[in-house]
Amino acid sequence: MGETRGSVRQIDLNCDMGESFGVYRLGADEEIMPLITSANIACGFHGGDPQVMRRTVRLARKHGVAVGAHPGYRDLAGFGRRPLVCAPDEVFADVLYQIGALAAFCRAEGVQLRHVKPHGALYNTAASDPATAGAIAGAVAAFDRSLALYAPPGSALERAGLEAGLRVVREGFADRGYAADGTLLPRSHPGSVLFDPEVAAAQARQLACARTVTAHTGEAVPVPAGTICVHGDHPKAVLLLRRIREELAAAGVSVAAPHAG
Amino acid sequence: MGETRGSVRQIDLNCDMGESFGVYRLGADEEIMPLITSANIACGFHGGDPQVMRRTVRLARKHGVAVGAHPGYRDLAGFGRRPLVCAPDEVFADVLYQIGALAAFCRAEGVQLRHVKPHGALYNTAASDPATAGAIAGAVAAFDRSLALYAPPGSALERAGLEAGLRVVREGFADRGYAADGTLLPRSHPGSVLFDPEVAAAQARQLACARTVTAHTGEAVPVPAGTICVHGDHPKAVLLLRRIREELAAAGVSVAAPHAG
Amino acid sequence: MGETRGSVRQIDLNCDMGESFGVYRLGADEEIMPLITSANIACGFHGGDPQVMRRTVRLARKHGVAVGAHPGYRDLAGFGRRPLVCAPDEVFADVLYQIGALAAFCRAEGVQLRHVKPHGALYNTAASDPATAGAIAGAVAAFDRSLALYAPPGSALERAGLEAGLRVVREGFADRGYAADGTLLPRSHPGSVLFDPEVAAAQARQLACARTVTAHTGEAVPVPAGTICVHGDHPKAVLLLRRIREELAAAGVSVAAPHAG
Amino acid sequence: MGETRGSVRQIDLNCDMGESFGVYRLGADEEIMPLITSANIACGFHGGDPQVMRRTVRLARKHGVAVGAHPGYRDLAGFGRRPLVCAPDEVFADVLYQIGALAAFCRAEGVQLRHVKPHGALYNTAASDPATAGAIAGAVAAFDRSLALYAPPGSALERAGLEAGLRVVREGFADRGYAADGTLLPRSHPGSVLFDPEVAAAQARQLACARTVTAHTGEAVPVPAGTICVHGDHPKAVLLLRRIREELAAAGVSVAAPHAG
Repeated sequence: MGETRGSVRQIDLNCDMGESFGVYRLGADEEIMPLITSANIACGFHGGDPQVMRRTVRLARKHGVAVGAHPGYRDLAGFGRRPLVCAPDEVFADVLYQIGALAAFCRAEGVQLRHVKPHGALYNTAASDPATAGAIAGAVAAFDRSLALYAPPGSALERAGLEAGLRVVREGFADRGYAADGTLLPRSHPGSVLFDPEVAAAQARQLACARTVTAHTGEAVPVPAGTICVHGDHPKAVLLLRRIREELAAAGVSVAAPHAG
Repeated sequence: MGETRGSVRQIDLNCDMGESFGVYRLGADEEIMPLITSANIACGFHGGDPQVMRRTVRLARKHGVAVGAHPGYRDLAGFGRRPLVCAPDEVFADVLYQIGALAAFCRAEGVQLRHVKPHGALYNTAASDPATAGAIAGAVAAFDRSLALYAPPGSALERAGLEAGLRVVREGFADRGYAADGTLLPRSHPGSVLFDPEVAAAQARQLACARTVTAHTGEAVPVPAGTICVHGDHPKAVLLLRRIREELAAAGVSVAAPHAG
Repeated sequence: MGETRGSVRQIDLNCDMGESFGVYRLGADEEIMPLITSANIACGFHGGDPQVMRRTVRLARKHGVAVGAHPGYRDLAGFGRRPLVCAPDEVFADVLYQIGALAAFCRAEGVQLRHVKPHGALYNTAASDPATAGAIAGAVAAFDRSLALYAPPGSALERAGLEAGLRVVREGFADRGYAADGTLLPRSHPGSVLFDPEVAAAQARQLACARTVTAHTGEAVPVPAGTICVHGDHPKAVLLLRRIREELAAAGVSVAAPHAG
Repeated sequence: MGETRGSVRQIDLNCDMGESFGVYRLGADEEIMPLITSANIACGFHGGDPQVMRRTVRLARKHGVAVGAHPGYRDLAGFGRRPLVCAPDEVFADVLYQIGALAAFCRAEGVQLRHVKPHGALYNTAASDPATAGAIAGAVAAFDRSLALYAPPGSALERAGLEAGLRVVREGFADRGYAADGTLLPRSHPGSVLFDPEVAAAQARQLACARTVTAHTGEAVPVPAGTICVHGDHPKAVLLLRRIREELAAAGVSVAAPHAG
């Protein structure tokens, strides 16, 4: 969790997985899975389908990767990236449905479901909207209070998770630029996506060791992350992850899911 | 299960529930739920949505009705009534997904999931196609071997369920006409649907007491049913169920879910 | 259009039609169609399906009702009532797709497509958001510049329609309460929906004759409407429409589609 | 049409295009479009979405490629490859809807819609099922009797098209093996897909010049094709098309849409 445990630093590496649908392939799941410690698996609303879910849970099991649910808005056409104004009851039910669907594949494969991370526009809305955040946290807690909730540090989602009695794992991003207030630069901003594996690896090291990032304005900003996300659809996702793991190893940081160790 | 237990005969009454979707209302769930002992709840593929599922599980709990999953083909436009030629792996994954989604609402509401009954064209295909039947039974068993599988007597689905080690509950219909071979008359056939509550109630009594029906050709045909289905979209579903319960009570048959008592 | 033509006042009465989907029935289309002069027919994204569209175009033709397309957000689960944040290119393409689909049924039935009215959240967003409004108007114009665009008076949609060279028909509501600024009272506000047929009929008469409504604060507010909408899902839609037609007739106002006469 | 016109032989080369959906990319449309003369553009039911349709119509226009509609079953999860048992009225309405939707993009881009070719399982069902074939031909004719219908030679779809008064363009396949009866080898059969560009090019030449193919059993079988299909999802689609065009040119066969020349 980015914290020293005795003399050992440890952090989680997570990535969105299982976002293919039917004949449509998306992401290099086979190559990425061996490099991460937690997989956020799509549940069929923004991406993923039942066969892809089954395959992805099996792939995670094969590589000893912790499995989480990655629920999104019901918007396959927009890949869950378009904000959809929903009532909290709708968010609650949609998230619970998706968690349950993924949990069935875990159960069938003898894998334990470990965490929930909302996807795309749902994640972004939950970062600032307490009603959406509360609905998500409520659905997670209603399903299983031992599940971890991945959330941006300082967000409405973090607060909702804590209020619901959940373990919250705070998330930093290795491949995204940060503003001086510790939030991500919007994707329209220059420098919002880090393409250079060296830069991303250095940011991952800083997140794990110093619990900060260097904002695009130059100052160090606290980002107390227990997990580092690399986007699976980053054009260099595999390369980034390899460099990040090397860099973390060199810094004496081990990688493991939050539940391990 | 239609069997004498000591001096008590007992049978299950099941009905499809929770088939509304979004603004669209279908079925008189509020009126029917108090009259049945098992509810087959739609899981979002042919009908139902997450909010409807939540509401329907709560309604079942309120009336002490056993909850089952009612998975169908992914065909909302056709309400799951159109045969869709699927590979067994697709059926397996689609059914497992739907069971898991409903199970999440059960878990959140403190209700135990009890059975699975495939819907519409999936039920019909599974009655005669061993590959589809095996995929369904496999998905049920992969999720929870203690779940009951509802199936037509003598069907491929019954055999697949037994082979998978599941408890199979054989189903008869109070509101449908039967052919001399013990199968349902096709809906295009005159007399395929029984509209007269007296006739349906008499058929239910015969199913429960004699374990037979009178085919449209006049002879008694064995139908060893442990559960009797009334279709929720029958225009007189509520009236039928009331008369059936009266008739069963008069015959000394109690109604209960297969798992009760 | 609410204007005196010689000595004859005339106004259009429109209603959303064809919003059923598959087995799901919505709205009293058979009863409402004879009472209106323009039908806004759902195109399959928020409601409606190809068979319903065909049936509804035929029903409109039978009663001599002008046919319009009623495109919505791609959100069947939310019936197009949930705002979905879309890029203008997405709105343009989604609207053009839906217009074309409905136009095919018009063509097959020998009916001329006359107008376009966006549905639900798309209508509301287009009322105030110039980018969405421009995308809708652009799609209508790209398909057929002779189509009328229904829009709230003074809205971004009206302006976008006029800029695109379209005939804009401004819309008033007989069954909704108005604020002092001429906008509709939000549905959460007391008095936002008018349930009394007498009150709705009086408001329709005032719209047609005085081109005003009486706001809930008591003053007369200009609403220069060429068409009056009654919501098809209003619990008393048929009754309202009957009273409105009587009231308009008594006031010497004839009803006709904007293109007629 | 594979016929000598004066001293010039001519044939059409068609390919399925525009089958991407949302973030999901499928097919090398940019590379394939310059090599074909007719594009069958997906209409959103089995693949494609409104933005993809717009982009693909534009791409076809840029390369002077004739545009056709490529309607499929409403089955995005199965990419329209799974037979769905539909009533003829459903097929009629679904096909008409899809043709209209694509025609709207043609109209907006100043392109003329030229033909209709059903997709996947709908094509296969229509080859042998007169009811499905009649529904498709009826929808095409209801929209525009000047549209060509692409169909397998000798099929129920060909007959239905002719009965509906449509121009039928008979289709051969360059990249598929044939049985001795002139039908395609099922995909499960060895040799059902031709991977060698030389073999495919030779088969295209034979189709264009001799109006036959060599069946896998060795004999020449008549296949009177006016258009030759190459599957866009063939792993070597671009290479195949290049070789086919060289081979046809060497044989003195020009390529053009059926409507050209």
